[in-house]
Amino acid sequence: MPRCLVIDDVVALRRDLHAHPELAFEEKRTTDLIVDQLLHLGLLPQVLPGGTGVICDIGTTGRMIALRADIDALPINDLKDVAYRSRVDGVCHGCGHDAHTAILLAAAAELVRVEVPGRIRLIFQPAEESLPGGAVSVVAAGALDGVEQIFALHCDPRLETGLIGARIGPITAACDQVEVVVSGPGGHTARPHLTVDVVYAMGRLITELPGLLSRHVDPRAALSLVWGAVDAGRAVNAIPMSGRLRGTLRVFDRNAWDAAEPLVRTLVDQVMAPSGARAETTYQRGVPPVINDPTAVAVQRAAVVSALGPAALAETEQSMGGEDFAWYLDSVPGALARLGVRRPGAAPFDLHQGTFDIDEDALTVGVRYTVALARAALARTVE
Amino acid sequence: MPRCLVIDDVVALRRDLHAHPELAFEEKRTTDLIVDQLLHLGLLPQVLPGGTGVICDIGTTGRMIALRADIDALPINDLKDVAYRSRVDGVCHGCGHDAHTAILLAAAAELVRVEVPGRIRLIFQPAEESLPGGAVSVVAAGALDGVEQIFALHCDPRLETGLIGARIGPITAACDQVEVVVSGPGGHTARPHLTVDVVYAMGRLITELPGLLSRHVDPRAALSLVWGAVDAGRAVNAIPMSGRLRGTLRVFDRNAWDAAEPLVRTLVDQVMAPSGARAETTYQRGVPPVINDPTAVAVQRAAVVSALGPAALAETEQSMGGEDFAWYLDSVPGALARLGVRRPGAAPFDLHQGTFDIDEDALTVGVRYTVALARAALARTVE
Repeated sequence: MPRCLVIDDVVALRRDLHAHPELAFEEKRTTDLIVDQLLHLGLLPQVLPGGTGVICDIGTTGRMIALRADIDALPINDLKDVAYRSRVDGVCHGCGHDAHTAILLAAAAELVRVEVPGRIRLIFQPAEESLPGGAVSVVAAGALDGVEQIFALHCDPRLETGLIGARIGPITAACDQVEVVVSGPGGHTARPHLTVDVVYAMGRLITELPGLLSRHVDPRAALSLVWGAVDAGRAVNAIPMSGRLRGTLRVFDRNAWDAAEPLVRTLVDQVMAPSGARAETTYQRGVPPVINDPTAVAVQRAAVVSALGPAALAETEQSMGGEDFAWYLDSVPGALARLGVRRPGAAPFDLHQGTFDIDEDALTVGVRYTVALARAALARTVE
Repeated sequence: MPRCLVIDDVVALRRDLHAHPELAFEEKRTTDLIVDQLLHLGLLPQVLPGGTGVICDIGTTGRMIALRADIDALPINDLKDVAYRSRVDGVCHGCGHDAHTAILLAAAAELVRVEVPGRIRLIFQPAEESLPGGAVSVVAAGALDGVEQIFALHCDPRLETGLIGARIGPITAACDQVEVVVSGPGGHTARPHLTVDVVYAMGRLITELPGLLSRHVDPRAALSLVWGAVDAGRAVNAIPMSGRLRGTLRVFDRNAWDAAEPLVRTLVDQVMAPSGARAETTYQRGVPPVINDPTAVAVQRAAVVSALGPAALAETEQSMGGEDFAWYLDSVPGALARLGVRRPGAAPFDLHQGTFDIDEDALTVGVRYTVALARAALARTVE
């Protein structure tokens, strides 16, 4: 069987992906690389209908489990001074999807070498960083047909390298996207009273909406609105005609999630009313919480213990992060695990920072875990 | 004497300038056009040392007065649906400087035809829309040497076409530029508590600084801080590392103007403190108020009456607008007048709007007034 060099070197693979990040649904080069690697393994990868993302099966008979990696990057600047830093301005693998992809490819290389009692479907999914997420189109393409359990992992800088975090039940939050376009007639900064001060109106939305939501929603729902981007005007001395404010709304509680959209729309209109500005709210309902199946978590834990020993097993909290892996779990049971990527003693850092980087020792941990996970899951499902 | 066609058609001239706007200190095409027109009049235009803007004298002996037009455009989008709309994306003559320039050129064409008892210095000034303003470099280039009085006009949509507004004493406000760069470590919108929420911090500055200033400054000083532009972040789900906020601070009172910079710096730091964000304030002191000389205003009024009749004379208020014409008045006496540009019955509109346009009948009014003004000023100064 032909074997390419890169796939045996998970660090090189991850660095190559890291240097060439691509945004949601634009993962052309990444898809080509995945296809090349899988072809070298003698597998038959299928590119997804949208042109990015790949599905590929290992094995041809028996029950089937799926392993999913997400492949897209974020629209943020890479601020690291390393040889493998992003070569694309304003795009960066600031969420570790490069690691997820490299780990799944390297695990595949190992899994084709060993006998597996069933079939493993590899899902290299595009557009996890968009809402409602690329998972929706993957599911629509039939990727879950015949799949009995599905698994994924996500880099977690709160956990030290060597640890895998598992949790039964909800492990992420619901996450929606809120966009408000505020507009008025524009004018001269000398005469705000003759027009509508759009920037000031946006300032009120930025500060008041989170506070007002906290007075309308049970604190135990853990609802949190955080703005990620604001943009209005170019001239220092002209009041702009419009501006745009974008952010995420995250919430643990399902009822609060259902109530969030109409509540946000009402509060935006009420906060805007005294300013005279027009506000157009676009509320993009995102993903529900990822709810890990207890049986699938048991498989994860067994895999951690067999591959890394019992000390590698960590509990983890429900995160406010959103994950479109939730959509797969609407159809089949499964579980998401957390992969520790913080070098012991390293300073705290977080996902989505321009300085985000992983301890690359975590890559082989991830590969060993993933290989063991696939085998444990199939061993279980063929029982 | 050669005579180009355009200079006799002030509407065509204004429309040509309007369609080709240029930002502060980039007025190359505008400068070339002015030079061409003046050469066609048999004059000897001198381009200013910075490469844009023009000085040109009519007449060679006798006492000298100056007429100033500003030639730059604004960084705003032209939103008009007219044949002469801006052909430059994001740049627009939204302040009427195209009209000022066309009027002074057309007045020059008339003034070279008639006998004038002295010298008229034409000043086509770049960069009025920047701070501290292009006037500073024009004065530094010696443009006021030998000048006894200087005059300018500015389009005013509050006045109907046919009216010229005059005022003794302050007619504009002091105007400074405030820029605050807010920064933090960046992070994930799921975990604002682990980083600094830069957009939220900026929202607090946007809303709180104007209110706090109003509690620290005598209301009679008419101090007003208005933000024109805000920009932070691109990803909806990532907290950005920095953002920038820019606006103008305007004030009538000279003492309040002197106190404004340290006050703004202190308040910015205090408002930022609870957010944990770092704020870097750049305070660009701008222009003082334009203070019209009583004798120069008397000349203006005489010119209005002789050119347009007494009904054309209007009083005008002190505006919150800033004008770098103030710098000329530091050296020589003079006055700024307001040119009515609103067609009677037209809906209210303001300078610096993307929909700003003038009633072009105001152009011939401006030319007739300017010619009469030059003659009246020289008649007076040679008395």
